[in-house]
Amino acid sequence: MKLTILGCHSATPRWDAHPTSQILEVKGHLFLIDCGEGTQVQLRRYKIKFARIKHIFISHLHGDHFFGLVGLVSTFRLLGREADLHIYGPKGIKEAITLQLKLGKSWTNYGLYFHELENTESEVIFEDDSVLVKTVPLVHRVYTNGFLISEKVTERPLDINACRRHKIDKSYFNKIKQGGDVKAEDGSVIKNELLTLAPDLPKSYAFCSDTVYHPAVVPIIKGATMLYHEATFLESHKDLAIKTKHSTAKEAATIAKDAAVGGLIVGHYSGRYGDHELFKTEAQEIFKNVIVGRDGLEVSF
Amino acid sequence: MKLTILGCHSATPRWDAHPTSQILEVKGHLFLIDCGEGTQVQLRRYKIKFARIKHIFISHLHGDHFFGLVGLVSTFRLLGREADLHIYGPKGIKEAITLQLKLGKSWTNYGLYFHELENTESEVIFEDDSVLVKTVPLVHRVYTNGFLISEKVTERPLDINACRRHKIDKSYFNKIKQGGDVKAEDGSVIKNELLTLAPDLPKSYAFCSDTVYHPAVVPIIKGATMLYHEATFLESHKDLAIKTKHSTAKEAATIAKDAAVGGLIVGHYSGRYGDHELFKTEAQEIFKNVIVGRDGLEVSF
Repeated sequence: MKLTILGCHSATPRWDAHPTSQILEVKGHLFLIDCGEGTQVQLRRYKIKFARIKHIFISHLHGDHFFGLVGLVSTFRLLGREADLHIYGPKGIKEAITLQLKLGKSWTNYGLYFHELENTESEVIFEDDSVLVKTVPLVHRVYTNGFLISEKVTERPLDINACRRHKIDKSYFNKIKQGGDVKAEDGSVIKNELLTLAPDLPKSYAFCSDTVYHPAVVPIIKGATMLYHEATFLESHKDLAIKTKHSTAKEAATIAKDAAVGGLIVGHYSGRYGDHELFKTEAQEIFKNVIVGRDGLEVSF
Repeated sequence: MKLTILGCHSATPRWDAHPTSQILEVKGHLFLIDCGEGTQVQLRRYKIKFARIKHIFISHLHGDHFFGLVGLVSTFRLLGREADLHIYGPKGIKEAITLQLKLGKSWTNYGLYFHELENTESEVIFEDDSVLVKTVPLVHRVYTNGFLISEKVTERPLDINACRRHKIDKSYFNKIKQGGDVKAEDGSVIKNELLTLAPDLPKSYAFCSDTVYHPAVVPIIKGATMLYHEATFLESHKDLAIKTKHSTAKEAATIAKDAAVGGLIVGHYSGRYGDHELFKTEAQEIFKNVIVGRDGLEVSF
């Protein structure tokens, strides 16, 4: 998986600090997660082939997470897009986008499908042969979901050398890749595990923003390879975190530790902080592998 | 008057080419005209004190002219704005903005007033002691207005030297500034014109975007000090101008010439053109004083 952070600052956009938006590349998909104002410019800045985006996941309907969506949808139209676009987000998102398109008499000439969410329990919202996307219900000032994007366990790849040793004919290869055993000439059964290699461990990415410290996410994101968790404040402003329903760096790290994730990326910093390394320092008192999110950051895992 | 162009490119925003938005400083007002995506970032980039904006004029509801409005309205809220904000634009603009604020449970804590326009004849939409704003009905794919912003004739300023020569007591100064004559000690009347200077000629700015070539605007904007007129295409793409209901540089210049304006700024260039000086060359065949609009351009007149 490769994550590109297009923006990870809270609230008001500035020329050097963009609101939340991320691109996750996984198994041939280019998933867009959140779409604050200016996301389409950030996509161009970081040379993302954004015609490849077919699925957009919106956590909640605060402006810094979705005001860039209608512009992106419109730009796709202007660029002559033909492929379907699926948008997953809170109930109301369809009306907000389609009303604006209607006012501009600017209907898309590609298929635009809205999948409106209102469930407060985790649910599967996208699935294909290789990837599964689940919601991670969060608690914020409005209805909000994080997302858990997981690779599926893939086929065990063929162990060519083992097949040669066991003198397996090519005609059996498909059966083996599908998990089948093979009967040898002497009638004995050669188990599939002897003819295949261990598959890569499936990876997963959890996105949790915006939210209060909410331990109920822990069982849902347990063992994720990488977690992005908002850390709008430091502990010194915990009163503000409580008041505005955001998290502190320490709280993000506590979730990371309890969920035993592989790594933690923090972001969604309040504009009051100049030095974002402070978030790392605070988080590392709880959890070691902390990455300071910033616009343009690429993380592969 | 001082005009700052925040963006003057058509359609899709890029990091180096912003959609339509302008700031006009006139008689203590800071008027925002159009508000494409990213306008709030451009306001910061050019260090405009945007808390001073109290009136926003939106020409039409295509994304490149209004998708930045909801973000700006929200940012005003986050910055603790208290002053009223008046938004003038096509019918539907109120629903588009308020729906999005409602979805985010983000009501403004300042007064937000919408003045929805649907008249197809020119009308006065704002007036105070010193400035008048009229619509300039345009013809585009959706209901569209340009705007004519005119200074009013101001008071004749006091001619201090003349007052001294005529030995006028200070106590008469207010009366004189308000246009009154003064009776001299010998009973003769000293006319106001002898005690005051000629006022500055009132200036006016006309904004016409987006529109087909539409000569009906000429009598409305007649004699404007400065005209911004869209020139999306060159004459070589006139077929596209007709099809998309835009103007060419030559057409913009023809309007400028027929309306006998003081100067013409062109903009709203289609992305297909690399060299915008071509618009000036084409326009100058018809009208001499042409300025090539660009992001960040300041023009005082």
